[in-house]
Amino acid sequence: MSSYAVLGDWGTSNLRLFRVQHGRITAQAEGPGIGEAGRQAEPAFAGAIAPWLEDGMPAEIRLCGMAGARDGWVEAPYAPCPADAAAWRATAASFDWRGVPVSIMAGVACDSADGVPDVMRGEETQIFGACALHPDLAQGRHLIVLPGTHNKWTLVEDGRVLAFRTVPTGELFALLRDRSTLAPRDAAGDAEQEEAGFADGLARAGEGRLLTGLFAARSMRLRANKSADWASGYLSGLLIGCEIAEIRATLFHGDNVTLIGDPRLSARYAQALEAQGVRSRLLDGEACALAGLGFTEN
Amino acid sequence: MSSYAVLGDWGTSNLRLFRVQHGRITAQAEGPGIGEAGRQAEPAFAGAIAPWLEDGMPAEIRLCGMAGARDGWVEAPYAPCPADAAAWRATAASFDWRGVPVSIMAGVACDSADGVPDVMRGEETQIFGACALHPDLAQGRHLIVLPGTHNKWTLVEDGRVLAFRTVPTGELFALLRDRSTLAPRDAAGDAEQEEAGFADGLARAGEGRLLTGLFAARSMRLRANKSADWASGYLSGLLIGCEIAEIRATLFHGDNVTLIGDPRLSARYAQALEAQGVRSRLLDGEACALAGLGFTEN
Repeated sequence: MSSYAVLGDWGTSNLRLFRVQHGRITAQAEGPGIGEAGRQAEPAFAGAIAPWLEDGMPAEIRLCGMAGARDGWVEAPYAPCPADAAAWRATAASFDWRGVPVSIMAGVACDSADGVPDVMRGEETQIFGACALHPDLAQGRHLIVLPGTHNKWTLVEDGRVLAFRTVPTGELFALLRDRSTLAPRDAAGDAEQEEAGFADGLARAGEGRLLTGLFAARSMRLRANKSADWASGYLSGLLIGCEIAEIRATLFHGDNVTLIGDPRLSARYAQALEAQGVRSRLLDGEACALAGLGFTEN
Repeated sequence: MSSYAVLGDWGTSNLRLFRVQHGRITAQAEGPGIGEAGRQAEPAFAGAIAPWLEDGMPAEIRLCGMAGARDGWVEAPYAPCPADAAAWRATAASFDWRGVPVSIMAGVACDSADGVPDVMRGEETQIFGACALHPDLAQGRHLIVLPGTHNKWTLVEDGRVLAFRTVPTGELFALLRDRSTLAPRDAAGDAEQEEAGFADGLARAGEGRLLTGLFAARSMRLRANKSADWASGYLSGLLIGCEIAEIRATLFHGDNVTLIGDPRLSARYAQALEAQGVRSRLLDGEACALAGLGFTEN
């Protein structure tokens, strides 16, 4: 087999690997997240690319994400904010694995003006990749967010990461939906009810009051015949709406946001942003990650 | 044995019963909460007072709390807001148990101005009891709160419950502390660290931004050497501070609050209220519940 490189994103929950040959992705592989692999990261990685190794060793390996965490494969530093792409790339952890040069990309750390430190690992690769793929993002000031478990709202100026704030809205939503007395376990998956709940939650979030809005998820079922699906949508709308209002009051007052990642969740964010008068566009997360890892399609 | 009455508070998690004779409490008993007893409420109640029944049947039984829920012993209605003590008492569910008259006190329901319904069961008994024990509370406008899993912030005017809002801060805190990635499981119980975290959380809450303040519980451990105990205190301070700020922006703009219930948690609320310039006083929850059930000490 001809020479190949391995690029990948190794997060807490998943390992996603791409085999690159002559500027094309010729194979993909998956494996356990760092959260599961832990101290067994090296054999987990070797196992995931075992079929490729049978055809020869890769010329190079480049990984981003929690692979570089303290409990990952090899710890990579954090590039401090403001961080441009060149400084960030130079901060990668480099080592040799079975004779193959490996780079684990750095995370990015910021100490915000209010004295609260924050860190990301993996999202920065997508952000720098987005700027590489979309030159307009590398000019001027932009707010980029990657919606998920821990959202990283990131202020980018002229291609540099200026500051960011992690908001664990996805984790909070999952806790409320799956483990609280507020949302029921008997959701039927009625998308229309869920949409209606989401819209009601967004409307409630307009007041910017999260805690005093939560109990309606329960009381509206008890007293206003709302369904479990409505309640789940309501909680989502309330949380996302309050999140955006808080971000707009602190990090970014502009009227344009770039979303990277999951299309379904991003559509929810786009709807919530629009409700507050903010336009948004959606970029593909995988394409951004690959571009951040240096992949250029041939 | 001389004639006796049984008064009690039967909540989701606990059954607490008092034997009253000649204006004195002569015995106490406990049993499973309605959440556990469920459809077996009647045998659970009989089991809890079995030693008393051996000496004869009570003359009367009065219960408050989730005993009157749909899944309780016998469903009791909700008295609508505004509710005064007389109307509320008249709304109790009355029935006969082995020849003994039983009253299960009504809950209270409100439809707030913003169209969100809310309900309480049990707290109203403590609130009406507080007004009976402290005549100044039955005059003018007061904000009363019972801190716990689901806080009921209640606006009382001239002894009537005007409106209230349930805020599930205690449940949210427990989810974040015990089941999230934000707070660690290795807290050592260092009270000083926890206090320092609580003060820092309160300070952060002054900005009224809950979601964007959460992640500091994790990032300050990763990057600023804060401890697990600090993080637990921080989350508590952030949540309670934001809760009070939201309540003050909606339900009550006054500068005086009455707390009923758990002394340790109430002290936290008193500290958070004071940080926002609001005085408070603490009343004993058991005494208020008994007074609400009609107990007058001899």
